Amino acid sequence: MPDSLADLSRQLQKFANDREWQQFHSPKNLASALIVEAGELLEHFQWMTEEQSRALPQEKLEAVAAEVSDVLLYLVQLTNALGIDPIAAAQAKLSLNELKYPVDRARGSSKKYDEN
Amino acid sequence: MPDSLADLSRQLQKFANDREWQQFHSPKNLASALIVEAGELLEHFQWMTEEQSRALPQEKLEAVAAEVSDVLLYLVQLTNALGIDPIAAAQAKLSLNELKYPVDRARGSSKKYDEN
Amino acid sequence: MPDSLADLSRQLQKFANDREWQQFHSPKNLASALIVEAGELLEHFQWMTEEQSRALPQEKLEAVAAEVSDVLLYLVQLTNALGIDPIAAAQAKLSLNELKYPVDRARGSSKKYDEN
Amino acid sequence: MPDSLADLSRQLQKFANDREWQQFHSPKNLASALIVEAGELLEHFQWMTEEQSRALPQEKLEAVAAEVSDVLLYLVQLTNALGIDPIAAAQAKLSLNELKYPVDRARGSSKKYDEN
Repeated sequence: MPDSLADLSRQLQKFANDREWQQFHSPKNLASALIVEAGELLEHFQWMTEEQSRALPQEKLEAVAAEVSDVLLYLVQLTNALGIDPIAAAQAKLSLNELKYPVDRARGSSKKYDEN
Repeated sequence: MPDSLADLSRQLQKFANDREWQQFHSPKNLASALIVEAGELLEHFQWMTEEQSRALPQEKLEAVAAEVSDVLLYLVQLTNALGIDPIAAAQAKLSLNELKYPVDRARGSSKKYDEN
Repeated sequence: MPDSLADLSRQLQKFANDREWQQFHSPKNLASALIVEAGELLEHFQWMTEEQSRALPQEKLEAVAAEVSDVLLYLVQLTNALGIDPIAAAQAKLSLNELKYPVDRARGSSKKYDEN
Repeated sequence: MPDSLADLSRQLQKFANDREWQQFHSPKNLASALIVEAGELLEHFQWMTEEQSRALPQEKLEAVAAEVSDVLLYLVQLTNALGIDPIAAAQAKLSLNELKYPVDRARGSSKKYDEN
């Protein structure tokens, strides 16, 4: 995990170590915390139309960015705890998706997603 | 957003553009997709003890890594769609957390989290 | 908790007892299982438009009903484990909502929800 | 859908009608709102041990009951919107689970769940 995410990872380890929070940070608990934050993120959008979600007012955008950050902070901590490199894992998954959804068959169709 | 995440971001934009999937990728829908993947991630841990979650067998670890990847892929696409820099946002949130949870008061206590 | 939900509650207790699954059914784990099922429910809708979600084909409707059922089954087991009467709790919450969202101020506005 | 849930269902329809909120209550949006509430429910448990979750203090129990209620209120509204009878659907799912997890093979094992 190079660069920007690696910096974040080191800072988060120090943050948790300084507070002796690693005891609470089992992968099970971090995966729970991640989905809780994903819920707070989705809450901003739940009564919006899709169109409204594409054109957020500045204040809402900042609130959404804060929730996205919380998701990312737990995701990095979870990959730390498990010894996973998130970028390498994401690149591998993206390569699989390239095979799973060939351009000429997937174009313009949301149905491909349903096969997951 | 420099480096590794930026690469991923560019690849994901091309992936969605090639398939004409941007029409489905409203922030509202991407936030839904993100939490759906966060659920698939949590599913691996739901009946485990915390201890078990800290020592996953290799096969389970790979399955978990794939779900973490899905969460990250949607997170990057959501920040793309919103024009948010996820690393800058996460750094800002981490700075806030440093103020919110001073080391000497937060040490060893999970209660601080309850004030969220 | 009278009647239909009470029947379901008794059956679910017997189901878990017969399989010696109460050991796994801590409230923490049941709340995780509930949100995992809620994710499987949402997955059906994630790429649909709202209009499409209001007019599901029969096959999709049955798949959605199965996921709603899973959510309800865990919700009942969670309330069992905690000794909560779900109907009484829901009635109390509904009464609070009546006070929180007066008809003449809440009419036609989704903004009221944002104050949560 | 007989009795207690049916009462709740009727009250929720009147509640939404009075406020002209049915326009926001597409199944897609209700499924989002349900998982958002499921996240608020899980948040109470995320840093607890399983043991702690089995012995909640009274104040925490009441907060949890309120979140369970929110999940149930959206579940009932979603089944209303879709024309699903939640009790009948849950009974059907429970019958399937009886076949899927025979007592003599499922006893004491959380592994059966992994096959989902």
